[in-house]
Amino acid sequence: MRRSITGFSNPTVKFLKSLREKKHRKREGKFLAEGLRLLTDARESGRIPEMLVMAQGRDPHPLLDALERDVLAAGGEVVETSEDILSKITGKDNPQAVCGLFSEFDTSLSGVDRHAAPLWLVAQAMRDPGNLGTMLRTADAVGAGGLILLDDCVDPFSVEAVRASMGAIFTQKLAMARWEEFLPWLRADAGQLVAASLREAVPYRGAPYAGPCFVMVGNESQGLPEDYELACDLRVTMPMKGRADSLNAAVAGAVLAYEVLATLDAG
Amino acid sequence: MRRSITGFSNPTVKFLKSLREKKHRKREGKFLAEGLRLLTDARESGRIPEMLVMAQGRDPHPLLDALERDVLAAGGEVVETSEDILSKITGKDNPQAVCGLFSEFDTSLSGVDRHAAPLWLVAQAMRDPGNLGTMLRTADAVGAGGLILLDDCVDPFSVEAVRASMGAIFTQKLAMARWEEFLPWLRADAGQLVAASLREAVPYRGAPYAGPCFVMVGNESQGLPEDYELACDLRVTMPMKGRADSLNAAVAGAVLAYEVLATLDAG
Repeated sequence: MRRSITGFSNPTVKFLKSLREKKHRKREGKFLAEGLRLLTDARESGRIPEMLVMAQGRDPHPLLDALERDVLAAGGEVVETSEDILSKITGKDNPQAVCGLFSEFDTSLSGVDRHAAPLWLVAQAMRDPGNLGTMLRTADAVGAGGLILLDDCVDPFSVEAVRASMGAIFTQKLAMARWEEFLPWLRADAGQLVAASLREAVPYRGAPYAGPCFVMVGNESQGLPEDYELACDLRVTMPMKGRADSLNAAVAGAVLAYEVLATLDAG
Repeated sequence: MRRSITGFSNPTVKFLKSLREKKHRKREGKFLAEGLRLLTDARESGRIPEMLVMAQGRDPHPLLDALERDVLAAGGEVVETSEDILSKITGKDNPQAVCGLFSEFDTSLSGVDRHAAPLWLVAQAMRDPGNLGTMLRTADAVGAGGLILLDDCVDPFSVEAVRASMGAIFTQKLAMARWEEFLPWLRADAGQLVAASLREAVPYRGAPYAGPCFVMVGNESQGLPEDYELACDLRVTMPMKGRADSLNAAVAGAVLAYEVLATLDAG
């Protein structure tokens, strides 16, 4: 269905705008992704938005045409509106000319097939949406199976996290679990849990990584709780040559993930 | 000098608050850093704030006492104020209980002694303050000499960049230059310019890195201009196993920097 919206107080506009807040996303089970590039990534991964919202007067683009066709074919809505209303929806002064509405995915741990990939990323209590999206993007780059979020992480369906993932939110398996649920699940089958640590750790280069390998990073300011580190199969140290003793969490995860990748590819 | 400020309209409050905007920072040549940890990093690097602003009723702390002593000994000001006023200054709902005022550093390229370290990071047109701060933090971790910002980068003295640097803004040499200035400077002495690229590139692992090695990353959405890539002494590829063809800029710089570090340390 196609329609046009011109009023700021239109209920659809209010609904879409409300999804900037986590509580509304959770109540509705929906989230927004902005920009033709992100929506094309979604489409190529088989994720078609339920609603496509476009600015009137945008530049024509064959990828946008393809997206429109797929949305309509899937029974979704195509909504044309003004740039001002798009700004209101996305909360940005210069919004992308198009955004899409999606249902949140299943994020249960039981949906994770650990044997589908040699490498998985795990983030514990990650609070920064940019870091979380970056972890998803890195997971995609290293050919990981997905990202498992432990404990109280920031919402991966926030606009900031979706944007920072550069489309990887649509291609990577995403799961959310408490540690108490994750650890028994991990131990029920093969799986090596690895984290950077200072406790009885071996150098990260040349460490005996083995797939399926779960690379875990901790909260941005607290790091991992001690018992999480102690539960790891492998603790590794990375050189810290400066005054500080840590890296940005998403950076540490990426450096480690690339090292695991090189080891597994060589093996 | 010690004093207490209770009014929101106090000129010092207005002045400090104005530093959240780049134009005011540039006019005054000053910036703010928040939090006892960051200020202690600064102090241990020999950078004493010109003014220390503290919330009344904060928890006592020996590091804060030491900071106060050093500020007063250096002829600076210690200002006590309310939490509400600190919130107003920093623009955060839950501000750190202390913040410090600093003069911006010299960021001229001529201040860079390339032989002081085997590794340097270079960021071109980096737009995200979190990425920029993260690059500084990574530079510290890998024992780099500093970060060179090329072309139109986001301001490294913004609160967000300073915070993301986790103190590395005080320990790493920071320089800013246009490409037209940087390239002749680089070529005037030894120095290997390295970037991730898809043009006639060799695998990033085992590439012939040599110090002083300058690891360069490009703008978040555009990457590096072609002629910048072509000017590199070494172009390397990193595995991209997913659907996307790139990493977050700060992540790419870190993975590459750790690889360079491992090569130089082994050599």
